[in-house]
Amino acid sequence: MILILKHNAPQQELQALEAMLSEQGVQVTGIHGTHHNILGLVGDTSKIDIDSILAQPVVENVKRVQEPFKACNRKFHPEDTVVEVAGRKIGGGHVQVMAGPCSVENEDQIIEVAEAVKKAGATMLRGGAFKPRTSPYAFQGLHAEGIDLLKKAKAATGLPIVTEIMAIEHLDLFADVDLIQVGARNMQNFELLKALGHSDKPILLKRGLANTMEELLMSAEYIMAGGNMNVILCERGIRTFETKTRNTLDIAAVPLLKQLSHLPITVDPSHATGIPSLVKPLSLASIVCGTDALMIEVHNNPSKALSDGAQSLTPAQFAEVMDDVKKQIAFCGKELG
Amino acid sequence: MILILKHNAPQQELQALEAMLSEQGVQVTGIHGTHHNILGLVGDTSKIDIDSILAQPVVENVKRVQEPFKACNRKFHPEDTVVEVAGRKIGGGHVQVMAGPCSVENEDQIIEVAEAVKKAGATMLRGGAFKPRTSPYAFQGLHAEGIDLLKKAKAATGLPIVTEIMAIEHLDLFADVDLIQVGARNMQNFELLKALGHSDKPILLKRGLANTMEELLMSAEYIMAGGNMNVILCERGIRTFETKTRNTLDIAAVPLLKQLSHLPITVDPSHATGIPSLVKPLSLASIVCGTDALMIEVHNNPSKALSDGAQSLTPAQFAEVMDDVKKQIAFCGKELG
Amino acid sequence: MILILKHNAPQQELQALEAMLSEQGVQVTGIHGTHHNILGLVGDTSKIDIDSILAQPVVENVKRVQEPFKACNRKFHPEDTVVEVAGRKIGGGHVQVMAGPCSVENEDQIIEVAEAVKKAGATMLRGGAFKPRTSPYAFQGLHAEGIDLLKKAKAATGLPIVTEIMAIEHLDLFADVDLIQVGARNMQNFELLKALGHSDKPILLKRGLANTMEELLMSAEYIMAGGNMNVILCERGIRTFETKTRNTLDIAAVPLLKQLSHLPITVDPSHATGIPSLVKPLSLASIVCGTDALMIEVHNNPSKALSDGAQSLTPAQFAEVMDDVKKQIAFCGKELG
Amino acid sequence: MILILKHNAPQQELQALEAMLSEQGVQVTGIHGTHHNILGLVGDTSKIDIDSILAQPVVENVKRVQEPFKACNRKFHPEDTVVEVAGRKIGGGHVQVMAGPCSVENEDQIIEVAEAVKKAGATMLRGGAFKPRTSPYAFQGLHAEGIDLLKKAKAATGLPIVTEIMAIEHLDLFADVDLIQVGARNMQNFELLKALGHSDKPILLKRGLANTMEELLMSAEYIMAGGNMNVILCERGIRTFETKTRNTLDIAAVPLLKQLSHLPITVDPSHATGIPSLVKPLSLASIVCGTDALMIEVHNNPSKALSDGAQSLTPAQFAEVMDDVKKQIAFCGKELG
Repeated sequence: MILILKHNAPQQELQALEAMLSEQGVQVTGIHGTHHNILGLVGDTSKIDIDSILAQPVVENVKRVQEPFKACNRKFHPEDTVVEVAGRKIGGGHVQVMAGPCSVENEDQIIEVAEAVKKAGATMLRGGAFKPRTSPYAFQGLHAEGIDLLKKAKAATGLPIVTEIMAIEHLDLFADVDLIQVGARNMQNFELLKALGHSDKPILLKRGLANTMEELLMSAEYIMAGGNMNVILCERGIRTFETKTRNTLDIAAVPLLKQLSHLPITVDPSHATGIPSLVKPLSLASIVCGTDALMIEVHNNPSKALSDGAQSLTPAQFAEVMDDVKKQIAFCGKELG
Repeated sequence: MILILKHNAPQQELQALEAMLSEQGVQVTGIHGTHHNILGLVGDTSKIDIDSILAQPVVENVKRVQEPFKACNRKFHPEDTVVEVAGRKIGGGHVQVMAGPCSVENEDQIIEVAEAVKKAGATMLRGGAFKPRTSPYAFQGLHAEGIDLLKKAKAATGLPIVTEIMAIEHLDLFADVDLIQVGARNMQNFELLKALGHSDKPILLKRGLANTMEELLMSAEYIMAGGNMNVILCERGIRTFETKTRNTLDIAAVPLLKQLSHLPITVDPSHATGIPSLVKPLSLASIVCGTDALMIEVHNNPSKALSDGAQSLTPAQFAEVMDDVKKQIAFCGKELG
Repeated sequence: MILILKHNAPQQELQALEAMLSEQGVQVTGIHGTHHNILGLVGDTSKIDIDSILAQPVVENVKRVQEPFKACNRKFHPEDTVVEVAGRKIGGGHVQVMAGPCSVENEDQIIEVAEAVKKAGATMLRGGAFKPRTSPYAFQGLHAEGIDLLKKAKAATGLPIVTEIMAIEHLDLFADVDLIQVGARNMQNFELLKALGHSDKPILLKRGLANTMEELLMSAEYIMAGGNMNVILCERGIRTFETKTRNTLDIAAVPLLKQLSHLPITVDPSHATGIPSLVKPLSLASIVCGTDALMIEVHNNPSKALSDGAQSLTPAQFAEVMDDVKKQIAFCGKELG
Repeated sequence: MILILKHNAPQQELQALEAMLSEQGVQVTGIHGTHHNILGLVGDTSKIDIDSILAQPVVENVKRVQEPFKACNRKFHPEDTVVEVAGRKIGGGHVQVMAGPCSVENEDQIIEVAEAVKKAGATMLRGGAFKPRTSPYAFQGLHAEGIDLLKKAKAATGLPIVTEIMAIEHLDLFADVDLIQVGARNMQNFELLKALGHSDKPILLKRGLANTMEELLMSAEYIMAGGNMNVILCERGIRTFETKTRNTLDIAAVPLLKQLSHLPITVDPSHATGIPSLVKPLSLASIVCGTDALMIEVHNNPSKALSDGAQSLTPAQFAEVMDDVKKQIAFCGKELG
């Protein structure tokens, strides 16, 4: 950590600052510049709050050298983490494809979709039971019943199930869910993250619409700090000024997050733009960039879907995407499933 | 609602679409263009899900005409809403100033700050007991004890208290809190909003870092749909590409939200940029733009604050800001408190 | 074009508006809604200025149905445009790789780099003679001498040359340049675009840092409106809130621009993030998304480069990227060069 | 400037780096950390290119301590600069109001508007002769004739005139223009900035849609480096994700730019949002934040304006805005004109 001090800071305040820093167990070295004096802090600075340093009257600016995330940091854990979800590996050369409808709507629908995506090559079933909708007047999901229907679909097809949690008090309902998703809007719902840190379930953590990669990693850190190391990151598009697409897929986040962290990563090409015809190219792009999983919305009848129909693929369209996805996974020397 | 249809859509699919729309109780009128046919839907379209329309194969695009928010919409409620918080009015020509530390740290601190901000003219006390921090390793607040200390400060000064809620299960602890704040990171924590909709407490709803004004209003709508009409909106800066300031204060949101909605509005000039020297100009700007309240961070010893010290004013700096704030409020023909 | 009229607009003003619209040669059809009346305009609305409509007192909002771009619009020109640059095809199944230094620095440097990138498989040479630098104190390029050196490198290697133009008055210097680049900062330098519209040179038009895809296409339209149809679009990363990367590559723009327009497209994975280790994955992602060319910064001695050294690849790194790029191009059924 | 070195960098490369740095005339001091070594550079580092440092293989990251702008930096020029435009002062307690139409359309229009805005209190006349339009099919301005008409309006009213330049080759036409505007889209048209640096005309430099405050200052630096110190900065709204307003006015930029630089500043509340009803509150907000000028679009017949009619005020609306603007200027202890 580097502190840039104000010009002409009084000697007395400088000494007070150095004393305060020494108390925190870090060593302090000074550099005297023409316009600024600089202090370098050496040691474990992760405990030091940047705000508290900035609040010192003699400090003009602070720059972090060490990254603020630890448990998920590749520097301290060089080998890739592989998360197992109901016996399927995410990471380590395996690529999983999670497919299914935005919302679970009824038994026929979810089983029909589950069978169709399985046939096309999907290895996990996604489907929403609790739906975060912008409008309180929109369909909010079937809740507990939705989870029950997902379990039936799992029983029918053998596909592990992934579904989103929106509140801590629903956690008990997720006992048989194989992979619990934290949605983009809850990426910084820290109380929820803490509760999931005390679970032993694998967690799929989606990046918030306007959150940086570092903030995503800090949210993973919340879960891991509680003891749950089974975290999978998910890039699903960020909010920018562009209006032709619903969001902007930050494809560079895939290889860069893998450099910064040892955690596996998923890409959601459906939410990334909201445009079905872009799902295939973005899926292929994610694979060549090293993603460990894809999450794709498929509905047996998009025009009657209760949510997100517009961005869902039909089973036939999904099968066509999977044809190319399978080939590209093989070409990259990886394995589907 | 206007539907733009694909060129050369088959007659049969068009008829199916029109039949589906008629079932939803809206009238359909067609316009036949050179390249596109257009359908206009007349009637109550607020129940119609835009996604389900977009998912129809013959539909190229949909444009909403009616705004999706109703309870908070000024069109249906032309007069200003005035929210009462422990007998103080927010709106209707009254301007409240909520001041206090980012975090409640101990009894001496909160009482000292409360007395200082009261003396300078603040009309409500803010202070965090549950703190949403990016890092799990940072100070997370005193929780229940923090709320108890706020109550002591209220007893000592008579200032109503405002503090942030982070999870539904903490709601019981907020029984004596006068104004419950929903933070920017929880603006779309819909389960929390629904729970607050069933409360009768006034709610201060902060705009998310990357949420549009319309999304803010839709989140207000979540609370109001549950029956709680005591919602105060808060503009606190949005995330942009600019890096010199922590966030970018969207000052135009103040007058525009007042045009769109009858709800009162607060501005938080401290979080808006993170730079103490900008609190005064941004407070004055907010007042001339019509804000009904200000929320300002003040700490008796910013350099020892456990959070957000860098953006806090000292009591002396706050008193100087209040000098000009009071004059500007009077100049605008409004009343402090 | 659809006009949403204000509620309770006076009949007289409505008639005035309809008369004004009829004068513009479009047909007007009305839909009468509960809260709004709507007018649909049928015919060629591309000449109608949206602002002038919005300025009518009875108009609340206007929505375009037809896209505002014509010459570059795929709807009116379904087949892909292939631009020839010194005999090399960009588009139509051919992928060109333009490589070279950010700045041309001296004869040895540019010839050494040109030979190295040619050997590794590059098919065109890029190099800056006029450099747009944020700081007036930074190296601004060798100007005319830089172009002369590029010509020498072309003579030595046979690689066509691409370099950036910054002002109309330099156009004569570009007589022997094979492909003229318009940089991101000049994407809306409309006077320059108009001048290039009267040239017969192929133009590489880079997307501005904060410009939408539609604005990029409108800038292409400026060149094409002058008669020059040889325009190649370039996605090079947009400005977002993320700070880990210099820009955010909008990878979805590649397939989407190809849907909207018949023009060929290039991706610049070097400027997209500024991080050399991301050039390979982003190059591969661009290829699977259908790019017709790549533009990659290569320097024989990045640590001594006069500009952008930090994001340049060494010739050895570039050769390694090209190994995978060649394989991926072949796997996609396309041809390098 | 602070260099953060890679972990375990070879001793030999470190020595080479230190030697290279010493050659640049700066002193180097090292700090040895657990995970990183740090070098602090002391002396005049403004000549050092950050990119060239980042390109050194042993360097992981570089942090600037000194700001890269000098001529416009308040640190080296503490007192406010006052720019005189045809005898009117911008800065130093004087506030100018520039008003007029987006485009000059004909003699009657510009003279009528000029007289109306003068009567309402405007102190300068704005009007576009060269118009940067997104579409090549939109009205592009009257060019030389437009400037002639502005001169006639000046002769009729005595108001100094401000109009936009779009290309260096038009500079001769601007001989009688009192204040030359560089538009947002040309803020980084560096060749134009250089040319204006050799002029002695006052320059109004608008912030680009997606440019940081630092980039705005660096563009001012381009003009000043050529010898022209008469630069006025202009905040006119930046591009964000919000869609209800055309742009987002970065109101905090007004006081912050004044802290960073001694140059005077203007705000354009018309372009900032594109919504006429927001011009008054944003004008008042700009004044309390310390702006030295306002630039407001006024048209005698907005519904027939050839450009930007939708965001123009009528003369009557402008007069009403000016009533409050005058009072607020006086309340702030400043002088209109």
